[in-house]
Amino acid sequence: MARPRVVIIGGGFGGLHAAKALARADVDVIVLDRRNHHVFQPLLYQVAAAALSPGDIAAPIRWILRRQRNVQVWLADVTRIDTARRVVRVADAPHEVPYDALIVAAGVTHSYFGHDDWHAHAPGLKTLEDALAIRSRVLTAFELAERESDPAIQRRLLTFVVVGGGPTGVELAGALAEISRHALVKDFRAIDPETARIILVEGGADVLQTYPEPLPAFARRALEQLGVAVWTGSPVTRIEAGRVHVGGDVIEAGTILWAAGVAASSLGASLGVPLDRAGRVIVNDDLTIPGHPEVSVIGDLALFRTADGGTLPGVAQVAMQQGAHAARGSLAALARQPRAPFRYRFYGNMATIGRNSAIGDFGWMRLKGYPAWLAWLFIHIVQLIGFRNRFSVLTQWAVSYMTYQRAVRLITGAARDDA
Amino acid sequence: MARPRVVIIGGGFGGLHAAKALARADVDVIVLDRRNHHVFQPLLYQVAAAALSPGDIAAPIRWILRRQRNVQVWLADVTRIDTARRVVRVADAPHEVPYDALIVAAGVTHSYFGHDDWHAHAPGLKTLEDALAIRSRVLTAFELAERESDPAIQRRLLTFVVVGGGPTGVELAGALAEISRHALVKDFRAIDPETARIILVEGGADVLQTYPEPLPAFARRALEQLGVAVWTGSPVTRIEAGRVHVGGDVIEAGTILWAAGVAASSLGASLGVPLDRAGRVIVNDDLTIPGHPEVSVIGDLALFRTADGGTLPGVAQVAMQQGAHAARGSLAALARQPRAPFRYRFYGNMATIGRNSAIGDFGWMRLKGYPAWLAWLFIHIVQLIGFRNRFSVLTQWAVSYMTYQRAVRLITGAARDDA
Repeated sequence: MARPRVVIIGGGFGGLHAAKALARADVDVIVLDRRNHHVFQPLLYQVAAAALSPGDIAAPIRWILRRQRNVQVWLADVTRIDTARRVVRVADAPHEVPYDALIVAAGVTHSYFGHDDWHAHAPGLKTLEDALAIRSRVLTAFELAERESDPAIQRRLLTFVVVGGGPTGVELAGALAEISRHALVKDFRAIDPETARIILVEGGADVLQTYPEPLPAFARRALEQLGVAVWTGSPVTRIEAGRVHVGGDVIEAGTILWAAGVAASSLGASLGVPLDRAGRVIVNDDLTIPGHPEVSVIGDLALFRTADGGTLPGVAQVAMQQGAHAARGSLAALARQPRAPFRYRFYGNMATIGRNSAIGDFGWMRLKGYPAWLAWLFIHIVQLIGFRNRFSVLTQWAVSYMTYQRAVRLITGAARDDA
Repeated sequence: MARPRVVIIGGGFGGLHAAKALARADVDVIVLDRRNHHVFQPLLYQVAAAALSPGDIAAPIRWILRRQRNVQVWLADVTRIDTARRVVRVADAPHEVPYDALIVAAGVTHSYFGHDDWHAHAPGLKTLEDALAIRSRVLTAFELAERESDPAIQRRLLTFVVVGGGPTGVELAGALAEISRHALVKDFRAIDPETARIILVEGGADVLQTYPEPLPAFARRALEQLGVAVWTGSPVTRIEAGRVHVGGDVIEAGTILWAAGVAASSLGASLGVPLDRAGRVIVNDDLTIPGHPEVSVIGDLALFRTADGGTLPGVAQVAMQQGAHAARGSLAALARQPRAPFRYRFYGNMATIGRNSAIGDFGWMRLKGYPAWLAWLFIHIVQLIGFRNRFSVLTQWAVSYMTYQRAVRLITGAARDDA
């Protein structure tokens, strides 16, 4: 008799942890992802800001799972899920992949709140390709400014607007400030990279609003000390090529980056169950969907209601814990046992502001400034070691990050076809 | 009075060495390149074979020249040279860049010998983008083979044909053999990467024909020991999507790579002087073009006839020596002094076959096998140090190269739109 098959859609934090939790189970596991690599998302902004190389924060999914003999990894673009027939459909081959249990960890993409035309002018940051495209845009802006003789155009080229004051926006703005204030300072002749304007625009009352005070206020001051202009209470009303409208103001900006909103993967809709406004799948307390104990939805794609009526944030910790839980739940479902409810353990949230400041909320303790940054560094090095060679992490990554090495400041691909 | 301006087109080995040779000269130097980075070409094949990261072998041109205060670096796509008006025209801005002396080091691109339609099916290897595209194709072939159930398609996906038995073709084939025999071995379930076929196709009588015997014969044996099928005397007559015609044979190959021919940059033609069949500029013995003592052409774009009637090969050594010579010659021309003839000093040629074998011809000595590989490694580490941070080279590069690290095995960009 064939062993039961667990199919996992997505090789992010949720999918990977689900696969690992099935290591000793008597099942065949198939991980489907449209990319061949797992990305360590918390450091993706550093690739965009030319502080780390893609290889520093990403690794092939099959390499990460290479020792787990019951796992197969397939490069495949899943188009829909047929829960009635228990198959997953794949785009670029006439394949249907049947499953006995399914874990959907397909994640989210950018949302422009109905203004999809903004995408071309203000790229977002979700994938390695996004990060490389942003890196090329940023570096190209400095290059074009260097050979520009018109001061107005030069000023526009050296204006960077980051839309969205959540962790990604804050980290991206801080990193852009540092690259212009430190990394590039000696490389140019006609321009002074320190004069670059970095503007962080947030519609809400403050940056990092999900963190308790005094952390948001601290983050704002730290950003301002780095040279970032922080505009809060400033909803973006329109984005055109090279121009952002913020209320009545118009900023001429050569580079506009989007860190303001996400929308769930469209795969959620093919499950035929209720979704929230952002397209997330409203899951039961055991992470399954109504009527299907063999189907779990986890991570950013899932909307999980906590006992107090709140929802869980779209962070790596939640996805990882849900991945492990969904793996156990899938085994229970295969054995026709009841599935246990999921409970989230909050260990903490962190965000960095530049190279030696951060904020951390650990529930029982709040950290800010340099101690928080050291904690952040330690936690992230330890986590990276989880999927990378230890020696490689401790040398390459530390060298890349501590020094402002120029090896990552490469413009590759067609970066100059933007406005 | 303004200082005279020396414009250098191209930031490869020739252009970079010309700029460096002008460090102490009382001139303004402008380096124009359509890319922001210099690539260490001799190791480019290793990026294509997923053995090194782009950042290991490339660095921003302006970073390399950051301490040389008389140099400006402009990201610019030069479209033509007007020697009568002494200006260089740039594509994507209404710029004309005037010069008092000009050094053209624009290099070469692929040539498909009149079969430009082959390009889509058999990409060549000249730029970092080329290398990344080849890396994606190679890795994607293994990925698609893993999830393929049809053995015929699987066999085609795992067949790699390298066209051209010069140094690039030999090094690429050797590196592909190693990645499939070593690096990927444990990562797959349905396929055995060791069964991948790597075929090196050469129209001439032997591989590496520019090297003296017994080096070509040794290289062929070394390749065969790595598992590369070496087909010599086998001219390619046609290339289609996924299929190579070699004489009467037809090979079904998922990946076809072109290392067979180069054509000079089209900029040479805008100089209005005699070119050879490959479009190279036939230069005077002082590297100038007829009638223009202020214009030098160097590197792969130049055809330099030696005293014995031969020509110089398109290698880094020639470009570097010509760059320094053209810099001195330009200063002489600006001072209305006669320019000295160029003389090439031959130090040696090397090619590697995989990770611990190489051949080297130093004129007075020929090396092969492991000693040659050690010599190759030493020479290249020393040369890389020239433009990279010493510590970074000795750790990152050595680690990347000695181990088969997986961090570089990332598929980025749209690799799957090929046949």
